[in-house]
Amino acid sequence: MTSATEYAQTLIRCESVTPDEAGALAYLERELGAAGFACERLRFSEPGTADVENLYARIGDGTPHICFAGHIDVVPPGDEAAWRLPPFAGEIENGVLYGRGAVDMKGAVAASLAAALEYLREKPDLVGSISFLITADEEGPSVNGTRKVVERLIERGERPDACVLGECTSEDAVADTIKIGRRGSLGAELIVRGIQGHVAYPQKARNPLPALIDALTRLKARRLDDGSEHFQPSNLEITTIDTGNKATNIIPAQASARFNIRFNDLHTAPQLKAWIEEEVAAALLDTGVEHTLNFDQPSDSFLTSPGGFVKMLGAAVQAETGREPVLSTGGGTSDARFIKDMCPVAELGLLNATAHKVDEHTATADIETLARIYKRFLHLAIG
Amino acid sequence: MTSATEYAQTLIRCESVTPDEAGALAYLERELGAAGFACERLRFSEPGTADVENLYARIGDGTPHICFAGHIDVVPPGDEAAWRLPPFAGEIENGVLYGRGAVDMKGAVAASLAAALEYLREKPDLVGSISFLITADEEGPSVNGTRKVVERLIERGERPDACVLGECTSEDAVADTIKIGRRGSLGAELIVRGIQGHVAYPQKARNPLPALIDALTRLKARRLDDGSEHFQPSNLEITTIDTGNKATNIIPAQASARFNIRFNDLHTAPQLKAWIEEEVAAALLDTGVEHTLNFDQPSDSFLTSPGGFVKMLGAAVQAETGREPVLSTGGGTSDARFIKDMCPVAELGLLNATAHKVDEHTATADIETLARIYKRFLHLAIG
Repeated sequence: MTSATEYAQTLIRCESVTPDEAGALAYLERELGAAGFACERLRFSEPGTADVENLYARIGDGTPHICFAGHIDVVPPGDEAAWRLPPFAGEIENGVLYGRGAVDMKGAVAASLAAALEYLREKPDLVGSISFLITADEEGPSVNGTRKVVERLIERGERPDACVLGECTSEDAVADTIKIGRRGSLGAELIVRGIQGHVAYPQKARNPLPALIDALTRLKARRLDDGSEHFQPSNLEITTIDTGNKATNIIPAQASARFNIRFNDLHTAPQLKAWIEEEVAAALLDTGVEHTLNFDQPSDSFLTSPGGFVKMLGAAVQAETGREPVLSTGGGTSDARFIKDMCPVAELGLLNATAHKVDEHTATADIETLARIYKRFLHLAIG
Repeated sequence: MTSATEYAQTLIRCESVTPDEAGALAYLERELGAAGFACERLRFSEPGTADVENLYARIGDGTPHICFAGHIDVVPPGDEAAWRLPPFAGEIENGVLYGRGAVDMKGAVAASLAAALEYLREKPDLVGSISFLITADEEGPSVNGTRKVVERLIERGERPDACVLGECTSEDAVADTIKIGRRGSLGAELIVRGIQGHVAYPQKARNPLPALIDALTRLKARRLDDGSEHFQPSNLEITTIDTGNKATNIIPAQASARFNIRFNDLHTAPQLKAWIEEEVAAALLDTGVEHTLNFDQPSDSFLTSPGGFVKMLGAAVQAETGREPVLSTGGGTSDARFIKDMCPVAELGLLNATAHKVDEHTATADIETLARIYKRFLHLAIG
């Protein structure tokens, strides 16, 4: 019997940097297929993005239908020499498993695999259904991944009753936090255009940078809200300002900035867009500086009811760890923003402290605890 | 007899983009040598910058000693296909000479060459001295150019009585403006460092961009002065802000900005540096954002007495054009900032409208007018 930790090691050894599944999906398909899951590989394409492999595997045709969702793609390791242990070796040192994806989120995928297979051994006569929805494009554009699998499942009327997404939600101890919603996200790019010229002749030029600074200052100055019942305060972050002017004596013709708002249920993307357009127009008024505002595809905030299956998931955590998990809506976006259109979704996974960082790691004990929680949840949810 | 315009055409045909003299200095050396000038090629080196060729040529050993200074290097032409006529062809169309350097400043070098040679033909028994100080590094770092030639001349006690630098000073009509000084220039780079993180977890990161924006807003907010007797108001321009953060969901760790102050005789570089340091420290106070301020080598403002030889130069302009030239200290730095340490210097040249631009051009009539002004000035100054 393969342990959750061993599954995690095997997955980490696949160098599945987005969008390359690098054998990780194939491995899951073999293991799930051997246990009786009907496996489906879904490959999606779209101009401008890489083709992406996804795996949907289901066993049983009854209800309740519990889906484990996740991704086996990882962000690049960065400078591999800076790692204590190699990022794709899946090595364990003093009970700690190192590797890119250890917490985000091959460790959780491994835990759900071990949980499901052990549950099936304990309950060979499955009354409900268990499925896996695993993508290779969560860390990338997220265009050909979970979004399209969900669309496909909805199209054919296959809606799980609940989905657990194994994103690394834990803050200080494994399973201390379940995420039951997410703030919305609105990204924008602001490009400003003036007239290039020599710094010695400012009257012949029009520097777009002061106008850009003014616009960003106005946007940053507003306190969007103080949070709501289930959400933390909305927040705007300027992520980059770029000009690329190497000449120290030239007033630049153009500059750009990007910013991102994570917003709660007190706002909607269209309202925020209107506000941004208004502030930028006010900042640029009478400056002669022209601008373009490009908005990224926004995602609105959502909330899964804290009752129902979330309560069962919490009970499983309490039983296995002795702690009641916090229900949170903090943090960044995830594929839950697509899954929520199909069924109630909650996120529960490993500690997020080292996600995306050098020396990403997890205690192997945490992976095993998470596997026990997932298995107990299956017992509570399916019986 | 070669006309000033023909000299200019030959010089433009040398593709002397900084620091390559591309035969332009060799050509001047041949022409001046043939007319009896003692020519000296001064090649200077310094680690980190290109070696640069300079030409110093003198005829006569009496006083007054009038020096024509200039540069034959040019800025790159940019997209050559965007030019109406090729940038290094020196072609004339409807009385207009096109080419990189036409006004900045091969046209003026050509005018001074034609003026001196014709003056010498008219006055074969020279009582004073005429010299040429021509560099191939004015548009570049300006380290191995006029600065070092001036140092060499001062070392050996060879100080002209006056120097005319042929930078393109004219605004609307040829020779409408003589520059008798320049504002000082202080450039600075501000680097700010925070803590990188995910935009969804701002509490775990420290975004340095708002602090940078605040610092720049403070610096830009101050009205430095309203100008002084001979100088226009001091001015600060932000020339670039850069972050280079391509990830739309990451708070950057670091960002940088550059700005430049052109300041008049109401300020000094050390005072301005102290003020900048103070404002930046105030903006960053309690933000936790760290910073580095790097100042470029500043140049202080200077003023050449509007009397003396400047008066003679003005009289020459008036006689040839019927207009009294404006005495100005506006515009950018030039090699006059080095020459002023050696002798009084004034700048007089062609129209600056197309300098550094695509389709740089000058009326050939302007080159010939400038040559007549320079020659008349020699008659007034030397006799």
